[in-house]
Amino acid sequence: MRSLCTSLATTEPGSTVTLEGWVHRRRELSRVTFLVLRDRSGLAQVVLPAGTPVPPEETTVRVTGTATANAQAPGGVEVTEAVVELLTEPAATPPVELWRPSLDASLPTLLDHAPVLWRHPSQRAKWELAAASLKGFRATLDGLGFTEVATPKIVGTATESGSSVFEVDWFGRPAYLAQSPQFYKQQLVGVFERVYEVGPVFRAEPHDTVRHLAEYRSLDVELGFIEDHRDVLAVLREVLAGMVASIEPSLAERAGARLPVVPEEIPVVHFAEALALVGAPADEPDLAPEHERALGAWALAEHGSDFVAVEGYPMAKRPFYTHPQPGDERWSNSFDLLFRGLELVTGGQRLHRPSDYAQAIRARGEDPSAYDSYLQAFRHGMPPHGGFAIGLERWVARLVEAANVREVTLFPRDLHRLTP
Amino acid sequence: MRSLCTSLATTEPGSTVTLEGWVHRRRELSRVTFLVLRDRSGLAQVVLPAGTPVPPEETTVRVTGTATANAQAPGGVEVTEAVVELLTEPAATPPVELWRPSLDASLPTLLDHAPVLWRHPSQRAKWELAAASLKGFRATLDGLGFTEVATPKIVGTATESGSSVFEVDWFGRPAYLAQSPQFYKQQLVGVFERVYEVGPVFRAEPHDTVRHLAEYRSLDVELGFIEDHRDVLAVLREVLAGMVASIEPSLAERAGARLPVVPEEIPVVHFAEALALVGAPADEPDLAPEHERALGAWALAEHGSDFVAVEGYPMAKRPFYTHPQPGDERWSNSFDLLFRGLELVTGGQRLHRPSDYAQAIRARGEDPSAYDSYLQAFRHGMPPHGGFAIGLERWVARLVEAANVREVTLFPRDLHRLTP
Repeated sequence: MRSLCTSLATTEPGSTVTLEGWVHRRRELSRVTFLVLRDRSGLAQVVLPAGTPVPPEETTVRVTGTATANAQAPGGVEVTEAVVELLTEPAATPPVELWRPSLDASLPTLLDHAPVLWRHPSQRAKWELAAASLKGFRATLDGLGFTEVATPKIVGTATESGSSVFEVDWFGRPAYLAQSPQFYKQQLVGVFERVYEVGPVFRAEPHDTVRHLAEYRSLDVELGFIEDHRDVLAVLREVLAGMVASIEPSLAERAGARLPVVPEEIPVVHFAEALALVGAPADEPDLAPEHERALGAWALAEHGSDFVAVEGYPMAKRPFYTHPQPGDERWSNSFDLLFRGLELVTGGQRLHRPSDYAQAIRARGEDPSAYDSYLQAFRHGMPPHGGFAIGLERWVARLVEAANVREVTLFPRDLHRLTP
Repeated sequence: MRSLCTSLATTEPGSTVTLEGWVHRRRELSRVTFLVLRDRSGLAQVVLPAGTPVPPEETTVRVTGTATANAQAPGGVEVTEAVVELLTEPAATPPVELWRPSLDASLPTLLDHAPVLWRHPSQRAKWELAAASLKGFRATLDGLGFTEVATPKIVGTATESGSSVFEVDWFGRPAYLAQSPQFYKQQLVGVFERVYEVGPVFRAEPHDTVRHLAEYRSLDVELGFIEDHRDVLAVLREVLAGMVASIEPSLAERAGARLPVVPEEIPVVHFAEALALVGAPADEPDLAPEHERALGAWALAEHGSDFVAVEGYPMAKRPFYTHPQPGDERWSNSFDLLFRGLELVTGGQRLHRPSDYAQAIRARGEDPSAYDSYLQAFRHGMPPHGGFAIGLERWVARLVEAANVREVTLFPRDLHRLTP
């Protein structure tokens, strides 16, 4: 019966234990040989007589021996009188030493050797932040009456935004990879009222920046029977709080993450006010990265908040399904959420009346019939609704203050990278 | 403050309530008009004076009125003295009447009008089975120390099985949609030991059958430090039990699902024994659908089980990474799980020694260097491991005994269908 490395700490000294894992480190001293074993729970120290052959680092082994108290060992218990059995062939030397406390690898090395370098405990912990965040995301929404959905990633038309989609050869016909579940999550509000989906989205924009990926995980939410985008923002606040709460302090420490406090109410500034705050001209149509940073600094100084929502983005810069701000249609009922001065979430209220869709589509110079499949949900009765999408990789990158979103993505895909 | 329809039952009679939802049905009698309102929780009855104009079915409305006891109303409470406010324009007539107790639509109608027809309560409940199953799947694996992962859906080579992949135009280069996360989940066993992923998989096989989709949701699991495929099957048993336990009896009833009992131990027959049991020739390389049905009937009769695992499938019919059966390499350490006589899950033990991979790849007439990226995990130490994949849509289809897997898929994709 296999024990986990960290369970050694609570094992009765003198008992026989079997551990299985990777040779994390071997150290051959003159009077004794140490084997540090790594499994999913952590590390354990195994003591062998000097001269015992120990397989190379990263080889998988089974160790059977006696649990023995030793204040110097991790958890205060080590394994002595051990027999080491190989579970595979001796491992090749890793491209970077994984037993060192920190992983010292350039970004290209990290990415080229991802299957091996993710094994480093501090690197692995970064993905565990993502996994914990997903749990918190779903648990929060399940508690609020949301239904998980699964929408198609292959779509027949590139209508949402024609310029940045990947084309697929679909049995000899052109089809496209979905750049978001936007149209489908809206249609499903008509069925379930409140829906969420965690899934891949695909953007063929040839951005070669530290914050863009061609495939990433989008945490999508959409809900019906709202008053306006402020109801959407209130759900987003709950979701973020749930994501943070799902990360145990010990994990945050292992991953080097600085967890934010999510305020009871996220500060909100109107886009026009935001421009004034950062000293930008009043006719700027968007916030530049330096404006986002300045707003982040402002929110921290004024409100002690790592988060700030900017509402009312100009309609001209938002997708056609965006709901305008009542009373002043230059602005929209939409928002961006900045986390530590970087855009993390885009959300807002959508149009829900079929006549508003027809008008918005015609205003783009398009024929509403091209959107017939999408629009049937609206013709047959939709509630006022809205939603948001969080980029998982961006979220984790901000938590650990990674310079590049690729550092926290298991197997990133971009303009240049399709492997590993 | 909005109340849900089903919360009416516990509302103090005489209080003012606000409900929001869809006009499920309107019935204009000579002395009174009934409006049945539908929201995500269920139905509520609203009573209006005869002659009150009521918007057409499926229009979204807000109803404010007085909660009034009436033994004939759903939940024993209805809304009287009501004001009905439209939340959108009057809805177009649905292609099929959604207020009828059962949804009477041909498959093409169901699929063409999916955004509207999923609103039917019994149809919606079918997807709720899927959502509940996903919760049970994740909760079971989280409890067993698994980590959720996210692997790329765009891959650079079509190596896993070249014939059935979709090609993507990746910034002018060819790339492919992943037909499974197989290679990646194995590599991640090297990092996390135990991993799972729920995600889309893509199969370009031009099957036009009732059980194949070109895009479906795969529930993938992989774990390290196993003895053999029986350890994998034991985890699968826990997962299935967790999925069934997550479905509330009231949901099963609404969806018309017949929930199975997952036996403490799933009966296992060897492939060779299975052929004999169904009277097939001993040299058959695979089980035909009628053989699967016969084995399902046998498991039910002999073991009272809706499930039966067939282990030892011929190596010749399994992918190259399959681990052979020790002592007789004609057979494999892999299995199919049949649920009510249909294949639901494929799983097994994989190779883990780098030299075994080199040999298996050469035996296909290929050069191992073509798999270099995949094989680096093995060169650097992998444990004995295995896993399985459950098709979500097939699972739900079996629960409700749907004739066609498309009936339980939100927006199916196949050879002929890319919309809605």
